[in-house]
This record gives sequence, C-alpha cells and structure tokens, in this order.
Amino acid sequence: MTTEPDDREGGNQRQPPKTDGREDGPFRPELIWREQMKGTRPGDRRVRIIRHRLFREAGPGLLAPRPRATEPRGGFARLWWRLQRLLLGAPIPTHLEIEERLTRVKALAVLSSDALSSVAYGPEAVMRTVVLAGVAALSLTLPITMVIALLLAIVATSYRQTIRAYPHGGGSYSVSRDNLGDLPGLIAAAALLTDYILTVAVSISAGVAAISSAFPQVRPYVTEVAVASVLLIALVNLRGIRESGTVFAAPTYVFVFSVLGLITFGAFRLFTGGIGYAATSAPSSAGSEPLTWFLILSAFAKGCTAMTGTEAISNGVPAFKPPEAENARATLTVMATLLGTMLLGIAFLVSQIGIVPDPTERETVLSQLTHLVVGDGWYYYLLQFATALILFLAANTSYADFPRLLSLLARDRFAPRWFGLRGSRLAFTVGIAALTAFAVSLLLIFSASTDRLLPLYAVGVFTSFTLSQSGMVVHWLRGQAPDRVRGAVVNGVGAVMTSLVTLVIAGTKFLEGAWIVIVVAALLVSLFLLIHKHYVTLARQLRTDVKVTPLAQPPVVVVPVPSLSLVVRQALGFASGVSKNVVAVHVATDPPLAERLRAEWPEVAGNIPLVIIESPYRLLLPPLLAYIDALRDAEPGRTIEVVLPEFVPRHWWENLLHNQTALRLKGVLLYREGIVVTSFPYHLEA
Amino acid sequence: MTTEPDDREGGNQRQPPKTDGREDGPFRPELIWREQMKGTRPGDRRVRIIRHRLFREAGPGLLAPRPRATEPRGGFARLWWRLQRLLLGAPIPTHLEIEERLTRVKALAVLSSDALSSVAYGPEAVMRTVVLAGVAALSLTLPITMVIALLLAIVATSYRQTIRAYPHGGGSYSVSRDNLGDLPGLIAAAALLTDYILTVAVSISAGVAAISSAFPQVRPYVTEVAVASVLLIALVNLRGIRESGTVFAAPTYVFVFSVLGLITFGAFRLFTGGIGYAATSAPSSAGSEPLTWFLILSAFAKGCTAMTGTEAISNGVPAFKPPEAENARATLTVMATLLGTMLLGIAFLVSQIGIVPDPTERETVLSQLTHLVVGDGWYYYLLQFATALILFLAANTSYADFPRLLSLLARDRFAPRWFGLRGSRLAFTVGIAALTAFAVSLLLIFSASTDRLLPLYAVGVFTSFTLSQSGMVVHWLRGQAPDRVRGAVVNGVGAVMTSLVTLVIAGTKFLEGAWIVIVVAALLVSLFLLIHKHYVTLARQLRTDVKVTPLAQPPVVVVPVPSLSLVVRQALGFASGVSKNVVAVHVATDPPLAERLRAEWPEVAGNIPLVIIESPYRLLLPPLLAYIDALRDAEPGRTIEVVLPEFVPRHWWENLLHNQTALRLKGVLLYREGIVVTSFPYHLEA
Repeated sequence: MTTEPDDREGGNQRQPPKTDGREDGPFRPELIWREQMKGTRPGDRRVRIIRHRLFREAGPGLLAPRPRATEPRGGFARLWWRLQRLLLGAPIPTHLEIEERLTRVKALAVLSSDALSSVAYGPEAVMRTVVLAGVAALSLTLPITMVIALLLAIVATSYRQTIRAYPHGGGSYSVSRDNLGDLPGLIAAAALLTDYILTVAVSISAGVAAISSAFPQVRPYVTEVAVASVLLIALVNLRGIRESGTVFAAPTYVFVFSVLGLITFGAFRLFTGGIGYAATSAPSSAGSEPLTWFLILSAFAKGCTAMTGTEAISNGVPAFKPPEAENARATLTVMATLLGTMLLGIAFLVSQIGIVPDPTERETVLSQLTHLVVGDGWYYYLLQFATALILFLAANTSYADFPRLLSLLARDRFAPRWFGLRGSRLAFTVGIAALTAFAVSLLLIFSASTDRLLPLYAVGVFTSFTLSQSGMVVHWLRGQAPDRVRGAVVNGVGAVMTSLVTLVIAGTKFLEGAWIVIVVAALLVSLFLLIHKHYVTLARQLRTDVKVTPLAQPPVVVVPVPSLSLVVRQALGFASGVSKNVVAVHVATDPPLAERLRAEWPEVAGNIPLVIIESPYRLLLPPLLAYIDALRDAEPGRTIEVVLPEFVPRHWWENLLHNQTALRLKGVLLYREGIVVTSFPYHLEA
Repeated sequence: MTTEPDDREGGNQRQPPKTDGREDGPFRPELIWREQMKGTRPGDRRVRIIRHRLFREAGPGLLAPRPRATEPRGGFARLWWRLQRLLLGAPIPTHLEIEERLTRVKALAVLSSDALSSVAYGPEAVMRTVVLAGVAALSLTLPITMVIALLLAIVATSYRQTIRAYPHGGGSYSVSRDNLGDLPGLIAAAALLTDYILTVAVSISAGVAAISSAFPQVRPYVTEVAVASVLLIALVNLRGIRESGTVFAAPTYVFVFSVLGLITFGAFRLFTGGIGYAATSAPSSAGSEPLTWFLILSAFAKGCTAMTGTEAISNGVPAFKPPEAENARATLTVMATLLGTMLLGIAFLVSQIGIVPDPTERETVLSQLTHLVVGDGWYYYLLQFATALILFLAANTSYADFPRLLSLLARDRFAPRWFGLRGSRLAFTVGIAALTAFAVSLLLIFSASTDRLLPLYAVGVFTSFTLSQSGMVVHWLRGQAPDRVRGAVVNGVGAVMTSLVTLVIAGTKFLEGAWIVIVVAALLVSLFLLIHKHYVTLARQLRTDVKVTPLAQPPVVVVPVPSLSLVVRQALGFASGVSKNVVAVHVATDPPLAERLRAEWPEVAGNIPLVIIESPYRLLLPPLLAYIDALRDAEPGRTIEVVLPEFVPRHWWENLLHNQTALRLKGVLLYREGIVVTSFPYHLEA
C-alpha cells in the first residue's frame, strides 16, 4: 500500500497526510482497524492499516472520501444521480458557500422586487373594488392610494427602527419571538409562511397577466404558463442562485424607470391636453352597489397588498456591505419613496384619464394605461415585459424567504428537522419543494386569477407587521438605548396602524377568503407546537451523561429457524459467535416439516437448544412474538437479540415469491421494547 | 411458579407435561432458558425455567401457545382481528380438517353442478349463433346438440379410464405432467386456471340472467348483482365450507328434476297439441348471413361450453366413499347421461316450438321455454330460482378448484409459495382472493353478459381435456395393465376428438376473444417457468450439509454515531459487549457538530476508536457506505456488523419528523453482501 497523492478537492485547508505507507505504523484511529489480539504474542501485528482508494486522510481522526466514493453505483441510482447533476449542476461543498455582500444599488433590486412589483396589481385591486359602486366611484382610487402611501411611510419608518435594533437581521419571527414570546413568534411565522406562498401565486398570476395582456394568444393557457413558471423558478432555486445581485438588478431598474417614465410622460400629455378623459373599457364591470364604508375599506384592504415585501430589507440586513444597518436604512427609504411615488402616480393617471378595469381580466389596468399614454409601440412591450420579469423576481424572493424561515423554525425545533437540511447545491431542498407544491396548488385551484387570489393575500403580512412592531416596542422599553423612547413611539405608531389595517383586511376580506388564511395559520401554529413538544421530549429523553459501558451480560440470542437451509445455519453460527446464550425457535405451521427438523437438529446444531412452538392455526408471527415476549418477561434486565436469517434475491420481483417474514418480523419487533433485531442476509447468486 | 393445568385445546394427543414446578429441574430446552455461567461456582443455578402464562409444554421440546398468546394487542391489529373473526368465524386448527367422504348421491350434486348447470346457457349459445343465418337455421340446433351429446359420451368414457388409472385423483395438470412432462402439464394448468376464472364469470352472469328474466326490476343492476354475488361466494369460501355435501345436494337435484319435468311436460303438451309452432320472440335477432360451415362450427364451438366441468369428478375421486374409483365412474356415467338428456330435450323442444333467442338478452331461452310450456306460475319461478342457484354453485366449484390447482403448482414450485398457505379457516386465502379479483374484473369489463363472455370460454377446458387424454394414452402404453390396449384406444379416441374440438373452438372463436385466453395462458406458462427457475436456484443454493459452527473471529462492528445521545451510547455499549472490534463512525455533515463530538469523545467512549468522515456535500449515507465498503475490502473473510442506534417514537406520525436514516441505511445495506445489520432501538416515552 502506498500513500496516494492528496487530491484536495474542495480547497481543503487541512494538513496533508503524513503516512509512511508501512502497515505497522503508529496507531491512527482515522485510517485503521485496530485488531485486538486475544493473546498478545510478540511479533503479532497489533494494528492493521486500511488505506483505500476511496478515502484519504484529511487530518488526525478524519477521513475525506474521494469524489468517486460517494457516487452511486446501482443502475437506477446512477441514472437519477446523473439527471440530478444535469438539472441542478455539480454539488457545491459547504465551505464554498458564498456570502455576497450587496451594494445599495444591488440590494434595492434584490430585496425590493416583491414590494416594487406590487405596483402592477395594487392600484388595479383598489379600482376593481370601488367600481362595484359604479364608474363614478373610481374617483376614490386616488384618495385611497394616498392613505396607502401614508401607511407605507409609517411602516417604512417603523422598520428603519427595526434595522437599527437588529443589525444582524430582524425578521418578524425573530423579533416577535425575542420580545413577545414563542406564541407570537410562531403566529408571525405562520402568517409569513402563508403569505410567502401567496406571494408566489399572486406574483406569478400577475406576471402571466402582464404577458397575456400584451400577447392575447397566451390567454387560454394562463394556468399552464403560471405553473410552468413556478416550476422553473423552483428549479433555478434548487440550483442555488449564485450571481443573484447583478442578474436581479436589470429588470427591477428597467421596471422602475419605465413606470416612472410612463407616469412622467402621461402627466405631461395630460397637462398638455394630449389625452383627455375617456372611459376606455366596457362599462359592464361597473356595478350598482351602494358606496358604503365597507366597500371603501375593502378597496383599501385590497390595495394594502401593495405593501407586502416591505419587511424584506429588514430581514436581509446582514447581506448589505458595511456599514450594514446604515445602508439598509437608506435603501429602505429609497424603496418606500419609489413605491409610494409609483402607486400615487399611477392612481393619479388612471383617475384623470378615467380607466375602467376590464371585467373579463383580459387586460390589466397598467396595460390599458400604457396603451393610452404611449400607444402600441416598443415602450408598451418593454413595460409589459419588465412588469412580468419583476413579478417573477418577486415570486423568486419568496423562494429565498420561505425555506429560510422554515429552516429557522427547524433550528428552533418548531418544524421537522429536514427543513433545515441543505441539498447538493446548498439550497433548502425540502422548503423549496413544499413552497412549490403549495403555490402550484393555489394556482390550479384559483386558475391563476390575481383577482381571485388577492382576498387571501396581505392578512398574513400585516399580522406579521403588527407582531414585529409590537415586539419592537417591547424591545425599546426593555432596553437601555438612549433614544429608546423615540424608538418605542415610532414602532408603537407602526404597531397601532398595522394592527388597525390587519383588522380592516381580515374583516373586509373574511368571507372572500381571508378566513382560509386564518384557519391555515392557526393550524400551522398548533402543528409547530406539537412538533416542538415532540422534539423537546425527545431531546430530554436522549440527553444523558452516562459513559459508554459494555453490556454486563452477553445478549440472549433468539434465532427463528424456518428450515435448515444454508442461511439458517450461517445465522446460527453468527449467533453462537456473538453470545453463548442462543436459542433456536421453530414455529410448526407444517407439523411434518417440524418433525423432520427436530430429527435432523442434533447432528446439525446439537449444542444449540431448539424450541418448537405448535401453531394449530398455521400462524407464523404471533407464536414467535409470544415466545419472544415470554423470554423478555423472564429475563427482565437482559438484552434480547433476534437474529433473522433472510435471503436477498438478485431482482426485486423475486421478493414477490417469498413471504417477507423477515421484513414483517422486523417491522413488528421494532415496536417491542428491549429487543435488538439483527438481519443476517444471504445474497442469492443469479 | 407452579405448573399450570394442561388446557389441551385442539385435541392434542401428546403426553401431558410432567413438570415439578421447581426452578432447578432437569434440563429441558423446550421451556427453559439455559444460563451459561462464566464461572461454574457450585450452588449457582445453571438452569432457569421459564414457565409462562402464554405457553404450556406440549411435549419434549414442544411449546403450545395458549389462545391469548397469539391474540393481537395493538388497537388497529385487534380491530382487524375482530372483524376477521366476525366475517370468517373462529380459526380452525389444522388437525380438525374435515375430509368428508361423499356418497354417489351427494357427489353428483357437489362435483357436477358446473357441468349440469351448463344446460342453462349451452343450447341458447348454439341458437344465438345459428340464428345469424336466419330463423330457418334454428332447425340446426337439434343436430348440433346431438353432436355435442355424442362428444360428451366420448369424453365421459375417456374420463372413466382416467379414474381407473388415477384412483387418487387425476386432474389434467397431474396426468399431463406425469405422462407428458412439465410443459404440457403447465399448459394444462394455465388453460384450466383461465377457464376456472371464466366459469365464475359465465356462471354468475347466467345465474343473474335467470334472476333478471324472472324479475325485470333487476335488469339495470345485473353487473352490480353479479359482482356482489362473486364477493359473497368468495366470503363463504374464505370461511371454508364444511357441510358442503348436504347443502349442495338440494339445488342441484331441484334443478335436474325440474328441467327433466319441464322437458317431459313440454313433450307431452307438444304431442297432444297443447302447444304449436310459434316464433315467440321479435324476429330482429334473426340475421341474414349465409349459412356457412364456419357458422355451423361456431355454433358447435359455443355449444361445447356445456361440457365444461366434466373433469370435476375425475379430479375428486379421493372424496368418494370407498370403493372410490367404482363410485366415481358410476357417478360420472349418471352425470353425463343426465346432462346429455337435458341438452337434447331442451334442443328438441325449442326447435319444435320455434323459440327465437331474445336479441336484447332480456330473457333467456330457458325462461321463454318455461313460460310457454308451464305458463307464469310457481313452476316457472321454481325453475328460474333453481337455475340461478345451480349456476352459483357452479361458480362455487371454481372456488374449490382454482385455489387447489394453484396450491399444487405452488407445491411443485411453479407458483409463488403463498398460494400454498392456508388461512385461519384452512382455505387457500390468496388463491381465493386472486380468483375473485380476476372474476370481478371480467364481470366489469364484459358487463356481466354471458353472450360476450362465452367466446373466451371452453378453449381452455378442451385444451386440458386433450392434454389429459393424451397423457392417458402415454400412461397406458408405458404401463403393464392387462387391458392397456383398450385403455389406450378409448383415451386415444378421446384425445383425437377433443383435440379436433379444441382446434374448432380456437379457430372459430379466435377473433371473438379466444386469442385473449391463448395469450394469457402462454404468459402464465412463461411465468410458471420463470418462478420455477427462481425457486430451484434458491433451493440449490440454500441446500447444504455444513454443520453449524460459531464464527471463527468476532465480527467487526461499525456503529454510526450521529450524536452522543442516550441511544447512541447504549448502542455503543451493546456493540462493545458483542465484539472487541468496534469502530464508531461519524459523518460530518455539520462540521461544528463533528468538532464537538470529537472533543467530547474521549471522556464518553474513550477506548472505542472514532472515525470522522468529511462530507463536503452534506451527504450522510454515501460516505458511510463507502467507509463500510472500504472496511469490507480490507477484511475480506470477516463478518461486518453495522449496529444502528435508532429511536422509535410512540406515534406513527412522529416518524415524519425524523430523517429515517436508520431505515434508509437498512434498506441499502441489505443489498450489500457480507454485512449484518442490527437495529438497536430506543423507545421514546410519551
């Protein structure tokens, strides 16, 4: 055996192995199998070194598998592995995890696409509600949007405080849990999780609507296109996005500048008389409901969906270049200003021009507006395309946030621990899969209709706003910061406002669908608590200080013997090598066979006692289990090991030709306390 | 501990236990656990007797579980067990198997219902075919039926020879395999199995047709009633029919006598001019095809379905009272005479009266005939009812034959061995379930229409007739019996005739559906051979003369250690009790955790070497498997035992919260040669 060269894949920084290639080298547990000789005759090798083509020594007590060691070798496994590499790319080692720090310019693009993209559906949602009271009521669009913009300013100011207090990232879950306790934290988490799912569904629906407004041919297939888009985004996220910042920047800025350009140009044409008041669409969407306060509040509630995503920057503070908090605060201010400007600008223009939302959802309000202001030229297609892209990016934001929140919950033992495991490309695979499954279900159930999805939206976000801001109030009051009073007041105002809005949203949208979100969130919280209880109980039971001590007595070994075949004899040999206390048990489902077995026994395995159990009803497992139970009763302190001889066929279908007694027995014995089960396999040749 | 009284359930004839109740009694492996003391200090108990409330000693080396020992204790298992007892009755011990011997009178009823019941659809099948060439062609019904009756006489005579040669039961499978070889035997078996399935489907369809002829309200639900009837018959058979003879006798004799009565009374009325020639039905069923030989042969082929079931008596010879062969031959003669008489009588009457089959299948020909001869009174309902009953009994016959033939195939290792296992009531559970599944599928596919099912029928039976008779010819020629020439001639004539008929049936019905049966039978034969190859290979590999010898070297034990939890420490303790060669392996998916583990290791389990394997791609199983493979390579002759610490939650859903690493590892390791896998479980408390 020679030392193989150190092919240090993965940029490993540890020392190279200093093996001398001799088998009688020093004791090194990492590469050796130490053979404990019974007699220590001098000259005996006490140590055998395994040096293997599959491993190299990466340090004392540390083996590093070579790449081919972990490649699957079976046919199907290999095919699946290749397909996975094709779709997802080569695996990324843990230490190569990139922590790209974002400039303000990039951060605005990466963290704000969710919020900024709401411009595409927010004002339209307001209009679709007020128009139920007639076309004249559309004049309320601007005032309602102004209230929303004011609310946005308040929430943004509140979150500036959160960033200051939590420079390492202040998600609603962490802030609420830190300051208010587990239950509020879990409520915030459940609310956010449901809203992340809805962000994907709503953004994709709106993005596809932007495309189908420009290309009517797409209209019959909106659901299919939406589902395909979600699957594509999921795949991209499973690959792991590595160059996120730069790629994200382009569409966000194109969208922002083209919307601002549209507003400026539209305002210019309006004031210069280039376009006049013209109710463009079929008036059939206008209803004749009375203009009640409830209707106005409903419109406001729907418009508040435009504010979802505002919390993203405060979640992502650690991703900023230093000084992190300062940069994040500045970016938040810019984002809120841009979002408010765009919302107000669009609301102003549609009110002045008199656009009526299309009742058939065939063209979005933004598309109508663009058509009227700039006509059907390149600018129109640019804006529609940028709208679709930023909406897809918004959906993509959820693909970062949802799995990350679940991994936090898993870390805190409120979610199944596999949500905390990262796949071959460092993505949280299970979280991504779960988000995709939920979002696709929503798209299928609601036929990818933004208008039908919106009633479910925003209640979760505002719940988490409220909890987070309330948590901040507690944080300031508890803390010793010099400006804690100011902080508490700002966050207090935020908490009061967002709680009022939460009530408005929940109240006005309750029957339309918000109840679903509330029920789901409540179920989620119960589930989190149940899971937590399990993990806590588990950890308490498994925590221990006892040292490892060898069994006082060797185990009592029970070997079920259906016959005297080779595998049974080998299993008996194994059993008698492991313990002196072996008993063979045969269940006599076929009495003549039992008789033969008893006759042959003394010659084959004379010194192992054989117990034959009658089975008048031809049952195999119950008498055996009863015997094992009886033995366990009789030997209370002692470990009972059941050694199961089983043969393993070459082909899976051959398993159908056997009774799978061993498998069934293993399944049942696993739930019997104090029983250790050993599979002794014999592999059939072809 | 005291000796419990011997509650010898199941009429056990073995000697009662002679225990003296003292714990230091003589060495008795059947009730004891012999404790091998390390030091043999005098006074140490060398033997510990387990005498347990769950068992009693039934003889030397033999334990008998008390009834409660084998009762399930879990919630769901207990519910299922109770349901099973409710539906199937209490289990029957093997030794209580009843071997009722049948008198000639009972045997005719039990073994002939399949053949005799064919009267209900045989003549009608002939008529439905010839009528395609016009109503005038119906005059061919009687001549064709006469040919069928002649064929019946030949086949019956042939089978009388078979009974003589095989007094212990001469099924087509056994006779063909004995004399012609495996392949012909398997072809006969496959042909019979398909025909048994068809017998159920055809008989039930015809039986439901008899009911719906009398009660038109049933017509819309014929498929549902047919499926329900099959399920009922299956349930009855799972319970095991114990009083078969007497219960079966009544409907068979009622049917035979009422049909004979009908024929007699009809002939009387015909000759006395009570009824004249009257084409009763709508003539729309009459076709205008040319009357070709093909059509005539088709009609003959369909009529041959009346002969299915003829072989039942020769299969069942051992069930007769002695002298078995003589009684069986006499019964076969009576059966064939009765069947021939009924077929000819009905064919004569319908030809004379001029009955035309109903094209809508709303009323059977037998029902029409009965209406015309005896009117709508009690006799009509009696006959319809008896017809339905004997057809259900015919289906029931397949429920005895199909599972029994499969159990023979299983015994000879041509079918999966679970077809040979008998359930709690001594019935072949799997065979009954399989027959039910196939028959129900056929009923659903063909909407329980006798006319649509018949083309598939009879080709299998005549194939098995031919093979069986050919086998008999070989039997006589090989043997030394004094009358072997006569036997060979009789069976030779039978073989030639039935082979011709097989060709006619296969040829005329090929496109109508016989091809399905041929394809299925061919697939079945291939499957039998494939299964046989597996079992033979298995048996060859497992057969051995080596004596049981303890392992020369203790196994190398690998313990995967994900953490230092209680179960891991206990598993390490178990491992070091079983072998001195223990190595703990940790896969470092989470490097900080691995570092902690390494730091704590010396204190917790200092003398067990710990190997940490890097896993840059966060994979758990592949590095571990690679390590085990490397160890196996390095220690070629040695057994490697993997001890898996695993915890078992209280509730099944809690398994969802864990990664099931142990389960996945067990699944993968089972297919690695030379690895013994031990589950070391820890049961969580609630």
